[in-house]
Amino acid sequence: MSEQWLPTLITETPQAGFELAVTLSRRGVKTTQPDVEVLKKLRSVYANDADSLTAASQVIAINFQTIAAANNYWRG
Amino acid sequence: MSEQWLPTLITETPQAGFELAVTLSRRGVKTTQPDVEVLKKLRSVYANDADSLTAASQVIAINFQTIAAANNYWRG
Amino acid sequence: MSEQWLPTLITETPQAGFELAVTLSRRGVKTTQPDVEVLKKLRSVYANDADSLTAASQVIAINFQTIAAANNYWRG
Amino acid sequence: MSEQWLPTLITETPQAGFELAVTLSRRGVKTTQPDVEVLKKLRSVYANDADSLTAASQVIAINFQTIAAANNYWRG
Amino acid sequence: MSEQWLPTLITETPQAGFELAVTLSRRGVKTTQPDVEVLKKLRSVYANDADSLTAASQVIAINFQTIAAANNYWRG
Amino acid sequence: MSEQWLPTLITETPQAGFELAVTLSRRGVKTTQPDVEVLKKLRSVYANDADSLTAASQVIAINFQTIAAANNYWRG
Repeated sequence: MSEQWLPTLITETPQAGFELAVTLSRRGVKTTQPDVEVLKKLRSVYANDADSLTAASQVIAINFQTIAAANNYWRG
Repeated sequence: MSEQWLPTLITETPQAGFELAVTLSRRGVKTTQPDVEVLKKLRSVYANDADSLTAASQVIAINFQTIAAANNYWRG
Repeated sequence: MSEQWLPTLITETPQAGFELAVTLSRRGVKTTQPDVEVLKKLRSVYANDADSLTAASQVIAINFQTIAAANNYWRG
Repeated sequence: MSEQWLPTLITETPQAGFELAVTLSRRGVKTTQPDVEVLKKLRSVYANDADSLTAASQVIAINFQTIAAANNYWRG
Repeated sequence: MSEQWLPTLITETPQAGFELAVTLSRRGVKTTQPDVEVLKKLRSVYANDADSLTAASQVIAINFQTIAAANNYWRG
Repeated sequence: MSEQWLPTLITETPQAGFELAVTLSRRGVKTTQPDVEVLKKLRSVYANDADSLTAASQVIAINFQTIAAANNYWRG
């Protein structure tokens, strides 16, 4: 059975929801490039490039939009 | 009759929904470039480029947003 | 009267919806560049470039999001 | 009084909605660069570049998403 | 007290909504680069680049999507 | 316990909502590159590049779309 990494979109808090959005964004990268060694090598590239960091933040923003809607914006 | 690859947007779990989003994203590429040999050759390019991987993750994020809404965020 | 190419957003199946999203995406290109000869010449460029293919898949994903919502996600 | 170019988002048909999305996209460019002569000169650049055409189609897709929602997807 | 520039998302007309979307997009730039002299110098760059103009139109499209939803698409 | 930086998505005003969207966008960058010294060095790059500024504004626009929906567009 494949690794269970996404049991639910529901989180206690907005901050936990943001962290899940980060997980989804990184999983999207890992799904495309499963080789962790390659990803480590690439980190020094994008982590020191302004546009790459903005692009990464954008993917998190799109995933956060999904998670926030899933949690009805934590309006309790 | 063309291949039936997208019978439904409904999935059992968020994780299965994420996998369907990956399928939709790859199908979007394949629709534009059906030649699998070309796609294999290109894989070594984008799979080793940080920005390309982020861009791929973004397409998955947009498709996942659609699948999550289709499944009412698996709120049961 | 201009060509009637978009009578409705409603489709029988998700797969037909995906194909309509591809149509919308290509129409967006054709609206900007109506010259089919130019488009044919450009095809060899984007169809052999990983990032171009990802970008094309992203436009399809945005249009599919619209079509899926229009069809209430084919939830029947 | 400034030119009235956007009285409503409501259109008769999806195709008219798509054309309004094209208008909104072009207006977004014109708002940033009002000089029509500059825009004409730039046309030969983007209209012959695959990625530029895809990017233009993406802006149309985002605006079409807005117009389609405004018209309740022309579900009548 | 900081300058009050965004009292409401509600506008009388779609066109006023589009203008507010332009304001939000420019504010997003100004928030990141407050130095107006720098922004003026950069204007000659992006205002004469096709892809930059398309990218600017895209930000307006995303903000317009938000404003249009806020105003229930001015459906009266 | 990790720093509590996102207790809620609810804000008093649209302007406060826009500021929260800026916070989310910057947090997305900081999550990917926690080293503040690196971020300071990169600032001189993106803050003086038109396309980088537009890309940053786009991330803010996506996050603002989420915050605005969370606050029911401050329609009171």
